Amino acid sequence: MKLRSFSLLVALSLVAVACARQDVNPKQTPPRSGAEWAIAIHGGAGSIPRDIPDEERQAYVDGLTVALDRGVEVLRSGGAALDAVERVVLTLEDDAHFNAGRGAVFTHEGRHELDAAIMNGRDRSCGSVAGVTTVRHPIHLARLVMERSKHVFLAGPGAEAFAVEVGLEPVDNSFFDTEKRRRQLEKALAEEANESGMGTVGAVALDREGHLAAATSTGGLTNKRWGRIGDVPVIGAGTFADDASCALSATGQGEQFIRHTVTGSIAARVELLGMDLDQAARKVLVDILRPGDGGVIGVSRSGRLVLLYTTPAMLRGAADAEGRHEVAIWD
Amino acid sequence: MKLRSFSLLVALSLVAVACARQDVNPKQTPPRSGAEWAIAIHGGAGSIPRDIPDEERQAYVDGLTVALDRGVEVLRSGGAALDAVERVVLTLEDDAHFNAGRGAVFTHEGRHELDAAIMNGRDRSCGSVAGVTTVRHPIHLARLVMERSKHVFLAGPGAEAFAVEVGLEPVDNSFFDTEKRRRQLEKALAEEANESGMGTVGAVALDREGHLAAATSTGGLTNKRWGRIGDVPVIGAGTFADDASCALSATGQGEQFIRHTVTGSIAARVELLGMDLDQAARKVLVDILRPGDGGVIGVSRSGRLVLLYTTPAMLRGAADAEGRHEVAIWD
Repeated sequence: MKLRSFSLLVALSLVAVACARQDVNPKQTPPRSGAEWAIAIHGGAGSIPRDIPDEERQAYVDGLTVALDRGVEVLRSGGAALDAVERVVLTLEDDAHFNAGRGAVFTHEGRHELDAAIMNGRDRSCGSVAGVTTVRHPIHLARLVMERSKHVFLAGPGAEAFAVEVGLEPVDNSFFDTEKRRRQLEKALAEEANESGMGTVGAVALDREGHLAAATSTGGLTNKRWGRIGDVPVIGAGTFADDASCALSATGQGEQFIRHTVTGSIAARVELLGMDLDQAARKVLVDILRPGDGGVIGVSRSGRLVLLYTTPAMLRGAADAEGRHEVAIWD
Repeated sequence: MKLRSFSLLVALSLVAVACARQDVNPKQTPPRSGAEWAIAIHGGAGSIPRDIPDEERQAYVDGLTVALDRGVEVLRSGGAALDAVERVVLTLEDDAHFNAGRGAVFTHEGRHELDAAIMNGRDRSCGSVAGVTTVRHPIHLARLVMERSKHVFLAGPGAEAFAVEVGLEPVDNSFFDTEKRRRQLEKALAEEANESGMGTVGAVALDREGHLAAATSTGGLTNKRWGRIGDVPVIGAGTFADDASCALSATGQGEQFIRHTVTGSIAARVELLGMDLDQAARKVLVDILRPGDGGVIGVSRSGRLVLLYTTPAMLRGAADAEGRHEVAIWD
């Protein structure tokens, strides 16, 4: 009987521990430990055949590496997570291999409409732009919306007028043209399909001060129409950051990410349930979204990085103060 | 020892029950009880002096009552929550006393740019429109975006082109003009201020089938510029519905509601922590938002209604199957 009581006590303790792991108090989440700074970046999730030409593979790897290093420079020298994620995304916007800034996909009308968002985990301040057509670096405009307007979300010609007011020089919409994306539009028009605009870019970072930030930028879907806005500029869908939980940037079927408030739901599980970021991201991506819907990158308050996707590939990179430094495309 | 084992077993069961109450699985939250159907509506939160002329007060009360009754008709006869909330909001869009549809505030340029969103708790499908200028019932367009496009969020001229494609007859932007709103713009221009566009409208409902829905529509801020989008069309900010938790519609300082993903955060507390809707709404409105930021209406799966605001007034109404039927402006 003694043994039986003992095993019941053990069982009781195990249940109690299981309970504690779901504690509601965010202050109960583990204190900071792990990497002093950390960063994850993505260049989109989707299908990339493993047998793509070597030069194409290398272009992705090089693009991701350059962008990652820009972020690492900021963080290593004690800079802000917010500056790091903006720098990374701005670098990828300039790289024509990605579906953001130059190299963005074409709309149904043969133009480019760009969306971007940035969020500062420090105070949850944020800025979003949607449907901009003449702004070279939409992520920089999103930051200016955050810092220099009373608003957080500007769209279309209005957002462009704001860009001019704050001193950004407009570019012609054809600045964003690339041959590859034009061919994708022709194919999509022939098939009357919305091709996924593989190549959305994003970054999340933790800085030495313990602050988090996230940034995402995209051209959206090839052959998109009707002023379609995806998840990227929707805070809590494609982009989210809060020092109380984590920073997240998503990529994939934007409509699904809006509907399931993906980054907000992951962060809520971390903040309210004290779940590990990895576990929370898995729960939402695997149990709530459909297989193949996309991917998400995240960083927790303790510098834990998550790069998770249910697509065949996600262009991605990760680095931290402990020496991690890698870029990858497939598993 | 036998007794001791027994009491340990009891303790074990109690801990297990305590655990279950915090279970992350929405199926574990309490089953439906309470009103068979329920509806709450709002016509904006903000400052309304208690000494407004009688006819103005009566106009608000009449407008809310008519709209509430339209929703009640749908629900009482076994109709869908989705139809009820659309009907209510559409009715308020037609009432020039509210800042949605006709009677919407003026932008800086002296025009009207309307935002709306609708969400079906049944499957979390949703539709949003932003910056539309020629659509008489933005909430109906949001519903058509949800049901007849592959997208969930359309903006600007693109959204209007979609409206025409699905058969909506455009109205001239001046259709939305009212003298009261023009005077508000003149005042705001003189003061170089963004006046709160008191009068955003929304509705949430639970139907006899146990499904939830939410809808919100607004003209945004008087004197708004740069294609500003507020919280209304942002799923998880101003509008949210999920049968697993609750339906919510918010009104107030839109930027704050986006930044704090207000409706998503309330719903997460209900779904993940098993909090009462009232408690969850209070937590977010009182502890996270600033005093005076606005209000929120909500309905839980069990038909509990919440109408909460931190402003001096919220135009609002509530009804349920148990005979509740009321409209109110102040406390």
